[in-house]
Amino acid sequence: MKFKFSAIAILLEVIFIILFGLFVDYGIEINSLYPYFKDVHVMIFIGFGFLMTFLKKYGFSSVGINMLIAAFGLQWGTLMQGFLHATQGGKFSVSIKSMINADFSTATALISFGAILGKTNPVQMLILTFLEITVFAINEHLVTEIFQATDTGASMTIHAFGAYFGLAVTLILYRPGLKNKHKNEESTYHSDIFAMIGTLFLWLFWPSFNSAIAAEDDKTKTIINTYYALAACAVVTFAFSSLLDQRGKFSMVLIQNATLAGGVAVGTCADLKIYPFVAMCIGSLAGIISVLGFHFLTPVLASKLRIQDTCGVHNLHGLPGILGGIAGIVVTAIQPETKNGVQLTASKQAAALSSTIGIALLGGALTGAILKLPIWGQVSNQNCFDDSAY
Amino acid sequence: MKFKFSAIAILLEVIFIILFGLFVDYGIEINSLYPYFKDVHVMIFIGFGFLMTFLKKYGFSSVGINMLIAAFGLQWGTLMQGFLHATQGGKFSVSIKSMINADFSTATALISFGAILGKTNPVQMLILTFLEITVFAINEHLVTEIFQATDTGASMTIHAFGAYFGLAVTLILYRPGLKNKHKNEESTYHSDIFAMIGTLFLWLFWPSFNSAIAAEDDKTKTIINTYYALAACAVVTFAFSSLLDQRGKFSMVLIQNATLAGGVAVGTCADLKIYPFVAMCIGSLAGIISVLGFHFLTPVLASKLRIQDTCGVHNLHGLPGILGGIAGIVVTAIQPETKNGVQLTASKQAAALSSTIGIALLGGALTGAILKLPIWGQVSNQNCFDDSAY
Amino acid sequence: MKFKFSAIAILLEVIFIILFGLFVDYGIEINSLYPYFKDVHVMIFIGFGFLMTFLKKYGFSSVGINMLIAAFGLQWGTLMQGFLHATQGGKFSVSIKSMINADFSTATALISFGAILGKTNPVQMLILTFLEITVFAINEHLVTEIFQATDTGASMTIHAFGAYFGLAVTLILYRPGLKNKHKNEESTYHSDIFAMIGTLFLWLFWPSFNSAIAAEDDKTKTIINTYYALAACAVVTFAFSSLLDQRGKFSMVLIQNATLAGGVAVGTCADLKIYPFVAMCIGSLAGIISVLGFHFLTPVLASKLRIQDTCGVHNLHGLPGILGGIAGIVVTAIQPETKNGVQLTASKQAAALSSTIGIALLGGALTGAILKLPIWGQVSNQNCFDDSAY
Repeated sequence: MKFKFSAIAILLEVIFIILFGLFVDYGIEINSLYPYFKDVHVMIFIGFGFLMTFLKKYGFSSVGINMLIAAFGLQWGTLMQGFLHATQGGKFSVSIKSMINADFSTATALISFGAILGKTNPVQMLILTFLEITVFAINEHLVTEIFQATDTGASMTIHAFGAYFGLAVTLILYRPGLKNKHKNEESTYHSDIFAMIGTLFLWLFWPSFNSAIAAEDDKTKTIINTYYALAACAVVTFAFSSLLDQRGKFSMVLIQNATLAGGVAVGTCADLKIYPFVAMCIGSLAGIISVLGFHFLTPVLASKLRIQDTCGVHNLHGLPGILGGIAGIVVTAIQPETKNGVQLTASKQAAALSSTIGIALLGGALTGAILKLPIWGQVSNQNCFDDSAY
Repeated sequence: MKFKFSAIAILLEVIFIILFGLFVDYGIEINSLYPYFKDVHVMIFIGFGFLMTFLKKYGFSSVGINMLIAAFGLQWGTLMQGFLHATQGGKFSVSIKSMINADFSTATALISFGAILGKTNPVQMLILTFLEITVFAINEHLVTEIFQATDTGASMTIHAFGAYFGLAVTLILYRPGLKNKHKNEESTYHSDIFAMIGTLFLWLFWPSFNSAIAAEDDKTKTIINTYYALAACAVVTFAFSSLLDQRGKFSMVLIQNATLAGGVAVGTCADLKIYPFVAMCIGSLAGIISVLGFHFLTPVLASKLRIQDTCGVHNLHGLPGILGGIAGIVVTAIQPETKNGVQLTASKQAAALSSTIGIALLGGALTGAILKLPIWGQVSNQNCFDDSAY
Repeated sequence: MKFKFSAIAILLEVIFIILFGLFVDYGIEINSLYPYFKDVHVMIFIGFGFLMTFLKKYGFSSVGINMLIAAFGLQWGTLMQGFLHATQGGKFSVSIKSMINADFSTATALISFGAILGKTNPVQMLILTFLEITVFAINEHLVTEIFQATDTGASMTIHAFGAYFGLAVTLILYRPGLKNKHKNEESTYHSDIFAMIGTLFLWLFWPSFNSAIAAEDDKTKTIINTYYALAACAVVTFAFSSLLDQRGKFSMVLIQNATLAGGVAVGTCADLKIYPFVAMCIGSLAGIISVLGFHFLTPVLASKLRIQDTCGVHNLHGLPGILGGIAGIVVTAIQPETKNGVQLTASKQAAALSSTIGIALLGGALTGAILKLPIWGQVSNQNCFDDSAY
């Protein structure tokens, strides 16, 4: 992979710089969003990066490749979203808000990375990031501009999208040789504590994630809803984790992941007037679904459906993302609201949810097929889950 | 403990959701306090969580149970404080400020957790959290509303309270079998570095902790006082740590803990016009007291008074908390100030300090007696300080 | 070293408190800069501290002594900068802005610490910090007040200054006995992941570092420039790291360090209207220079020039700092701007760059000579890179 990776990375970086030179200007100077941006930034690089350090021999790759994907992806995300919203002259401007959206776009690629963690090389990850962010930007445009649906915390457009995109990729890249558990696919004591650094920074800053692009007047409500959704989710996760264990113990993988499901699921309607107790119900439900998913569904997906989901992103982002989408449908059906002069409706929300899942699966399958091409090189089975790239 | 923990946790969570549904509304939409809230949030979950990871086989429990206590406690803290300040209709509203207070209330339980770390099971911790936050809210109401004392950085109401509550609990739960040092009650190289993550995030964000609920006009002064108090405390801690060691070396446990004592001690009068040099004197004194406490007092407490204080919370929160209370008495005696139209006096401060210590000791003793009931199950001596819950 | 360290530390702390009592008052109560301060604070204590934890047996010293230097240095930095800008009465005021500058001043000592990491004792580090911050404050005054040059992100006054000061110190303290690689001068798996915590917090908050003292209207522009400079730098670092490795692998030391060079190099002109694509060019160039420096220059410096640079600060702070200074010269030559009513010119920038390098080398050499005095005690060769101080 020696020259391939360097050549592709340098080539794309040069293209990015040229495109920035041609199209990008400074936006208006407002920085009240900067504190929100920083929290999202920490979530992307520390949160996602360390959450994936649980593998005993893949910690450095997790946090390192995570950084590569995000640093690369945020540039392409800026350009893609700029092109889709460009003004007449073709130029567009960057601001703190567009930096938030650029970071958001990389989250989809990082979620998909979780599904295929340990089984791809850096060249493949660059290609995946490039393709996924392209598809994400188009779907996001479709959901918010064409369907005019609401998804402020991005339960659908980021979490469900990233998860199903990644699951489609891992299905296409199926490795029969990994059917039996790989000897490196486990954690050690310290790798599990490193992963908790990721979990906690995600958990703590999730209110900022969900409120970052919410309207100014809705920010506090969004923060409050997310805060209580996560608190309820965490308690329920501990309870169900103990309940499902034969000796009543807590499972580290569940504490690391399912405690976050409440933040995912409350995203779509976090800025609506749902009241904290509804947010807590959504959060609790998300925790239960996520725990059950890890416990019962992941083994079935791997053995029956040939979907090898290393980090269990289906349980953390997929199912809770769908739950968020459904919550959005239900809430807008029961209590119609208007946002920016647009009437929110259950049918718009349903269209957004189904298009997101459909486009993610299709885009992921195509991307998987491209990644399977022999020209990129493939990681051998025995080198999987190993920091061999370092 | 299998079903007991899950049943109690789910039951209480359901009760919380119902109470939130009945009583909680959104407050006014102001989010200028959000940056302060986030720092406190990081301190509670990362700071306290990682500070307790120093035990070689209890790291995951420390950071995991810390998360459980805090996520559970912040919901009960919201309700308790709401009930005490509820308006006529019985309803009350939540805001960023009430989220700060909810997080604050969990700090007391986390401090007490430090005293009994490794010697209780998750069921006992839920009960303790529930009881301690109840007592804390009542005492806090007493101090601020009845006695009208000032304690902006909560040296008394959080730090001294949490420490003496926890010491009373650990006294009641005394285990003769742990008289000789347990083989797991020590740190390893990496566990000590993990603990430094906790130390540093506490140290860095302490100015936010002390200023979070200070009046808008006093925030900068509070930040400045805390910043210099902590800096002086850190230097003095290094100096005294080296001085007390036979070969002049630094003690890791002192660097992890005593460097923070300045933040605790300056809390009560951090928002008063004490000038930075007085803050530095208080911080230095706190560092010295804390170092001496770890060095001379903790062994005596354990052997003579049967108080087994795992994390040494007496030296980090107890003694510096009392110092903070005394500093409040002295400062208000020398330089009378008015706050929100109320005259601060030394006698009000003294009443606040003594009531806090008394209520904490009494509440802790009662809680310890409840926790000793056989129905909760008890951790066996040989399983102490072991991540056996995972 | 037992009594020497404690005596010097306590003596200096007492002097600091007296000087604070005599000269320091509260400044005006504005705290809009507090979020920027906090990010800088995290960078200084977590960022620099953990970045240096990569040595397998020196992790605790790195993060511990880092804390000591910074806590001690910020007090002296406050005083030095206050004395240089004091008003008539001799008194000066502290504010959030002066706290940012105090933290900044400690960064120079921490960078120099990186060059001599593992080869000095705590007494020597206190002396170095005291002397270096003194010289830094004078040079910074010279650059901004006398030469009236711009250096908002401090590429020259902090990064280049700290690096060349440290290199001069390590040259004077040259140890022939360490010519062959010391057995402890290497990393372990977990120590490398700890170091990534430092890298990431530096990388994430660098936009705050560069914009902290920028004018209010220029902050967003500065943030945007730094964000894209770092993103481009990270991608290029991964590409060149793979390119220079025989098997195309990534080097951990390069990912930990060279990814940050873009933040250093864009500092001087980050608040000028250079447009994001120019920032990305500067960032990319910095990444390349830094990678090449680690790969080719560091071994030569050690073997031919007797400069033993433990952390490679020359490649992370030295060369990119000079690049930043040169970028400032070029940008002000091409596109003259006015700042605070002062015309920026290439010649002022060139004077600032050369005076900074000259004063750093001279100051470092003198400081090295002082540190070599036998009265401070010296670490023996075999105890180098060992946490023997703990």
